[in-house]
Amino acid sequence: MQQIKLNCSSKEKIENNLGAYFHGWLMNQLEGSLVEELHSMETNPFAIYVEQVHDKVQFVLSLLNEKAIEIFSPILLSSSLTTINLEASRQKEFQIKNREIENLSEKDLADVFYRENSQKNFDISFVTPAGFKSKGEYIFFPDLRLFYQSLMKKYNYAFTGSESVDVDMLEKLCENTQIVSYRIMSSYYKIHRSFVPGFKGTIRIRCRGNQTINSFLTSLIKFGEYSGVGIKTGMGMGALQLKENRK
Amino acid sequence: MQQIKLNCSSKEKIENNLGAYFHGWLMNQLEGSLVEELHSMETNPFAIYVEQVHDKVQFVLSLLNEKAIEIFSPILLSSSLTTINLEASRQKEFQIKNREIENLSEKDLADVFYRENSQKNFDISFVTPAGFKSKGEYIFFPDLRLFYQSLMKKYNYAFTGSESVDVDMLEKLCENTQIVSYRIMSSYYKIHRSFVPGFKGTIRIRCRGNQTINSFLTSLIKFGEYSGVGIKTGMGMGALQLKENRK
Repeated sequence: MQQIKLNCSSKEKIENNLGAYFHGWLMNQLEGSLVEELHSMETNPFAIYVEQVHDKVQFVLSLLNEKAIEIFSPILLSSSLTTINLEASRQKEFQIKNREIENLSEKDLADVFYRENSQKNFDISFVTPAGFKSKGEYIFFPDLRLFYQSLMKKYNYAFTGSESVDVDMLEKLCENTQIVSYRIMSSYYKIHRSFVPGFKGTIRIRCRGNQTINSFLTSLIKFGEYSGVGIKTGMGMGALQLKENRK
Repeated sequence: MQQIKLNCSSKEKIENNLGAYFHGWLMNQLEGSLVEELHSMETNPFAIYVEQVHDKVQFVLSLLNEKAIEIFSPILLSSSLTTINLEASRQKEFQIKNREIENLSEKDLADVFYRENSQKNFDISFVTPAGFKSKGEYIFFPDLRLFYQSLMKKYNYAFTGSESVDVDMLEKLCENTQIVSYRIMSSYYKIHRSFVPGFKGTIRIRCRGNQTINSFLTSLIKFGEYSGVGIKTGMGMGALQLKENRK
């Protein structure tokens, strides 16, 4: 997996759904047949989010498998790409000041299992609106079962191509973890003409499981920093970050 | 029902669990046999909360039936009561500057049914930590079913002495309403040596039901401003306020 960050600057406050516009721009860079192929896939092999910190705007593209790296990496890393033009956005032009590239392999994630890990608390920040769909309904609260299920699906899809979920493991995770504190708010994410319900903010998950469960959870969340969680991660929703200062 | 507010002033920030200390103080004003009688009741016939707005601290006692009014009203309205002394609190002495008294009868609540009510949105503010208990577990998220169920129990207890809940009506409420936006955070409430999980913040409930359901919901929430919602409302948890500027 690869994560590419394009760092731009912005004087004004950006829209919260810039990821959706970035998605549109990205698709415009591809040939039509490729766009169709991507749209026909059950799961997106990439995730997008856009984050603003002060006057810096970061366009982030996570490429979850080899195919995605092959398609998108050359476009974003080409030296001829100096600007991102988003016609639907308030600010039309974003000059790329520099790029950051990070790689994460299945081995890196597996290595988590061989490290002694005594961390019980996981502080997770949802930097763009995250939402789930369950029984046909939108869920815009941090339901841990839906959270784990979504990450496990994306994880398996990225590494095996299948979306199957280990139900026993999901059960174990749910039994051994709980949200112990949170600060969240609802936030709607505009895609085309609809507003998709989501939430932003932070949650602290406490894990009371054994070393195996703890390691599995750690690698799942680390993976989640690439894949995002829940619905519309290819359009900019569901970006999460694991905060380091946890006990 | 009667709500008595004792307005005091405070220069420092009060503890979030001052209601628990106020509860202790209140019990100290009663004869032992009366305290035992109150403790033996399945449901508290009163609710407490303490709120600080700037340098004003408000001790609020809601008396949910005639018996409670008979017991507590003379104590709080006695002109000889000029100070509330809370030994466990940081600030020990709260001088009473003035009192507010409000009455709400079943007829007042029933009158809601005869007014044309076109309000669809209910903005509810949880001013002290609210929590629920379900299947032996603490729930510290705003689950609407638990919210309505708790209010309906308290409502029936106050007016009929029974805690039975009209299951069909509960179902109708759940079907016809949803939380459409929120901003909440977890908040633990210290009672003796344990920390009870709760949440604070605001939620907006949208009602899509007919006039009957809308009126029922309105009177339920108006009642909730007296009774509080969820667990430990006699100790200061679960205070709610319906904000007026709703569309």
